Amino acid sequence: MNMLGQFSNIQKSLIEEELISAIRSLSTPDTLKESMLYSIKAGGKRIRPLLLLAVMETFGADTDKGLKTAAALEMIHTYSLIHDDLPSMDDDDLRRGLPTNHKVFGEATAILSGDALLTRSFELVADSSIDAHSKVRMISMLANAAGAEGMVGGQMADIEGENASLTLEQLESVHRRKTGRLLEFAAAAGGVMSGLTESDLNKLRLFAEHIGLAFQIRDDILDVEGNQDEIGKPVGSDEGRQKSTYPAILGMNKAKEKLSYHLSEARGLLFDLHPEPLLLLELTDLIGSRKN
Amino acid sequence: MNMLGQFSNIQKSLIEEELISAIRSLSTPDTLKESMLYSIKAGGKRIRPLLLLAVMETFGADTDKGLKTAAALEMIHTYSLIHDDLPSMDDDDLRRGLPTNHKVFGEATAILSGDALLTRSFELVADSSIDAHSKVRMISMLANAAGAEGMVGGQMADIEGENASLTLEQLESVHRRKTGRLLEFAAAAGGVMSGLTESDLNKLRLFAEHIGLAFQIRDDILDVEGNQDEIGKPVGSDEGRQKSTYPAILGMNKAKEKLSYHLSEARGLLFDLHPEPLLLLELTDLIGSRKN
Repeated sequence: MNMLGQFSNIQKSLIEEELISAIRSLSTPDTLKESMLYSIKAGGKRIRPLLLLAVMETFGADTDKGLKTAAALEMIHTYSLIHDDLPSMDDDDLRRGLPTNHKVFGEATAILSGDALLTRSFELVADSSIDAHSKVRMISMLANAAGAEGMVGGQMADIEGENASLTLEQLESVHRRKTGRLLEFAAAAGGVMSGLTESDLNKLRLFAEHIGLAFQIRDDILDVEGNQDEIGKPVGSDEGRQKSTYPAILGMNKAKEKLSYHLSEARGLLFDLHPEPLLLLELTDLIGSRKN
Repeated sequence: MNMLGQFSNIQKSLIEEELISAIRSLSTPDTLKESMLYSIKAGGKRIRPLLLLAVMETFGADTDKGLKTAAALEMIHTYSLIHDDLPSMDDDDLRRGLPTNHKVFGEATAILSGDALLTRSFELVADSSIDAHSKVRMISMLANAAGAEGMVGGQMADIEGENASLTLEQLESVHRRKTGRLLEFAAAAGGVMSGLTESDLNKLRLFAEHIGLAFQIRDDILDVEGNQDEIGKPVGSDEGRQKSTYPAILGMNKAKEKLSYHLSEARGLLFDLHPEPLLLLELTDLIGSRKN
């Protein structure tokens, strides 16, 4: 098994333990707790928290100190999926092969469990074992990445762009906010907790931006060429909804070229960092070749 | 004009300026920004931020340093109203005499603008001008009061209790979480920023619990005996939906006795504090006699 595989196996268990105990310990109505746990346990690649911890591991920081912030980040990602799946938003019935949260618990509970996950995430960072200044910086960065200027703004732009055919620039602007900003947070937060310089933090942010776009292009390609069993949703679903995607705007060949471009830019930024960030290089390769 | 009236007039303007500039300054899609501003500008008594600042004023702290946290608290209250009004929750068309957020902007935008307000609130506290330790404490307290163990948990219990006839204990438990915890935060946050002892903070928390319940009982009474123009919604709407209320459970006379009890407990706690908290005494009287 490669280095990233070993690292991910160990850290994924720790992240999931942290997530589950942060919800189980809540004194709150059972339905709400079950609904929160349902979506948290529905799995996923945990790519955001893993990126955060991989950065810390790379630069010799104590990953245990990053676990709560990593879990907080995954909570925010999970809440965004619950709200995005709602009937008034993307109206999705399935997520990772399972019924979406509102299909199981109803819309009201799904909205509230998203709200509760978002709120709990900031409490987790505030309760983590890093110094107060770093916590404040982390919370400010996380709120900015997740809020109106970041992920929520991106989802808004995405909804407004539905049924319209976007230009490449508009599509990238949506992705940069909707998925890019949280990945950027993951990399930068890991960097802050490793005590990196501003210059290295900026390299990591740019690196995250490139792998974010690469991730999204790979997603669009898989929707056309992927295996339904592996990706957990029907192939061709983007085309069915006339969603703006890279292959739709650029054609498949140019979309694949664009994927290679972002992967190579990402690798280039990593070569500028010391010690050699092997875990992050493997992560970049994985994003380029993933099957689901 | 009384002392509280003068204080409120000045501070309300400052709170509203802070709220509006914290949203206007966001770089985000216009629709989202307008939807956030719409509900923020829809007014209301601003009782939570005013309580926070009144505590600071009472104990000689610099209220300017509390403004961002006060605004954050009002943002959280506002987001909760937007989400509670949604069709899948309380399904309200009117709020303070105006169409509710989703009636004007649609459900998707209403959900996102609630999410954005909640997220922005933590960024505001993180960016306020108090020391890092106080910020972290404030954020942890605020998230706990607003989340699954506090307001969101209370809303969940409230929804589950709909169409059921609640006991007095169940009704109080809903109110303690749904409205009580944020008021408690307001009082305690003001106390923390005034450097009060844990013993005084606990008195303020209990005080807030009593005025919170008093506020709610007064609300229920006004729904039966109030003036439609003054309260901004039809009189008797609770009875129409068979909502569990104090007058419904206890009868009107006992409900009024209960209101007096909580007001007198609240005053009793204030008499134990120094300097004499005149502003907070006036606030208590106002809650007991308010017409809207």
